[in-house]
Amino acid sequence: MSESSLLPPAPVIYLVEPFGGSVRRQNPNMPHVFWDDAAVTRGDGIFETVLVRGGEAKNLDKHLDRFARSARLMGLPEPVREQWARATREAVADYCGERGGDAGDVEARCVWTFTRGRETTGVPTAWLTVRPIADEVLDQREHGVAAVTTPRGYSIDPDVPWLGVGAKTLNYALTMAALRWAKEQGADDVIYVEPDTGRVLEGATSSVLMVKKGGRLRTPAPGPGVLAGTTQAAIFEHAERLGWKCKAKNIYVGELFKAESVWLVSSTRIATRVKRLDGTKLAAPDNEAEIRQLIADAVA
Amino acid sequence: MSESSLLPPAPVIYLVEPFGGSVRRQNPNMPHVFWDDAAVTRGDGIFETVLVRGGEAKNLDKHLDRFARSARLMGLPEPVREQWARATREAVADYCGERGGDAGDVEARCVWTFTRGRETTGVPTAWLTVRPIADEVLDQREHGVAAVTTPRGYSIDPDVPWLGVGAKTLNYALTMAALRWAKEQGADDVIYVEPDTGRVLEGATSSVLMVKKGGRLRTPAPGPGVLAGTTQAAIFEHAERLGWKCKAKNIYVGELFKAESVWLVSSTRIATRVKRLDGTKLAAPDNEAEIRQLIADAVA
Repeated sequence: MSESSLLPPAPVIYLVEPFGGSVRRQNPNMPHVFWDDAAVTRGDGIFETVLVRGGEAKNLDKHLDRFARSARLMGLPEPVREQWARATREAVADYCGERGGDAGDVEARCVWTFTRGRETTGVPTAWLTVRPIADEVLDQREHGVAAVTTPRGYSIDPDVPWLGVGAKTLNYALTMAALRWAKEQGADDVIYVEPDTGRVLEGATSSVLMVKKGGRLRTPAPGPGVLAGTTQAAIFEHAERLGWKCKAKNIYVGELFKAESVWLVSSTRIATRVKRLDGTKLAAPDNEAEIRQLIADAVA
Repeated sequence: MSESSLLPPAPVIYLVEPFGGSVRRQNPNMPHVFWDDAAVTRGDGIFETVLVRGGEAKNLDKHLDRFARSARLMGLPEPVREQWARATREAVADYCGERGGDAGDVEARCVWTFTRGRETTGVPTAWLTVRPIADEVLDQREHGVAAVTTPRGYSIDPDVPWLGVGAKTLNYALTMAALRWAKEQGADDVIYVEPDTGRVLEGATSSVLMVKKGGRLRTPAPGPGVLAGTTQAAIFEHAERLGWKCKAKNIYVGELFKAESVWLVSSTRIATRVKRLDGTKLAAPDNEAEIRQLIADAVA
């Protein structure tokens, strides 16, 4: 192993002109966000996290779709689709090239950020980063997680016109607090459930996927409290082609204990099996290898 | 009027070492927040907005108390009280000195920010800014506002252990969306009310203060959905000394229409009278000058 391979690869950052102009490389050792940016002062912006694998960004169209939807819901200018695709391609090529070795082996996490911008200029701020996937994420992908259920702590009223339900915003302080709390309980992740009904919503940063007998896949239907998942959508599309019966419908927490297997799916972690829920061990399914292959192929 | 007085005064920024070390001046024309700061990626941090007047930060102890409480609730290190007080004094002195003229005439807005810091270092990021108060704020202080009531869009469950109810975090994307919506309705601000009960919570960035006949002041009691207000507390303390009867208790939206006057109070806007609520004109009270004086003296 060469000495340089002991260091994590340097992040690649591209600043993106918000209205479709140029993109340019930014030195990751220099800050570029101003103290009066709405992202900093208000968490007022949107993001997407995209898996990079085999030299390319995966599931790109679904991420571009959701990015545009988030922008619309938050009253931000529409991100210029072609520009983000191009900036992503360039950044991924830089990252793979600079990392050395075969680009086909590279895995990374690409994050797009689009904020309402500086108070003093009113121009949105936009950039993307390409970075290594955290060891913890790779570890969870392989070894699964212990999860605890919890109410979200707030219930969302879908009739409020300005709420932007379904937007993927930067307001994750509560999510981070939930994850810290889970770790204090000795767990790795949370699964949000509706307090009165026990209806399953989603993981802290993932969609819940349940495998049932008879080749059935289930996920909670997107809506208030359930963000539409890009990885979940890719898995369903692929699985349906292979003859799985896939449905987005209500799941109640008791069903998770009776399922063949329960997974948390998201872009860079891809899928992690829930091995323990609220302290109870969930048995390993007979078809774990098949499910892993199904999911791997869906995001390939 | 000299030419320089036509330009808004330059902001004064101090970076603050999070564990009580040194403070240093930061060039406001240079960004200092990194792309992997938790404030940027997650809105994961806390803040306080402090009024600067007559060469000093007002209501300092109450802001320091709430800042410390927010940090505790969010699992952040305790801000070093003396350090923030000193950094504020130095920054305010710089700002007043550089603005020229008599420091006694200067009004400004000082914002403290404390974030969970960079993902790559785990060290919190902390800084403060001193800047002019926006013209819109000064205008509302003088001329009042039209407000619209709206449900908050989410209800908060105080029993969820990790929610950090009462912390003043950077997660204001929904607040900003509510204000944009208010402006689309031709109003200036919102007053959040509980949908089923009509119980009044707070303004978007202010406490609600209601003046009733017989020298009575009312404000909604702090709790889930109602942040304890530093300005409201200062007003109550001062008014009680003058013989006003002050109570923090439930207010229902119908009472606002029958009150002598309704005010939104916050640090830099201080107080703005609600002149129109949901399109209905609220009559000017006979004692408006007295109330204004009461509030002015309370934050003097």
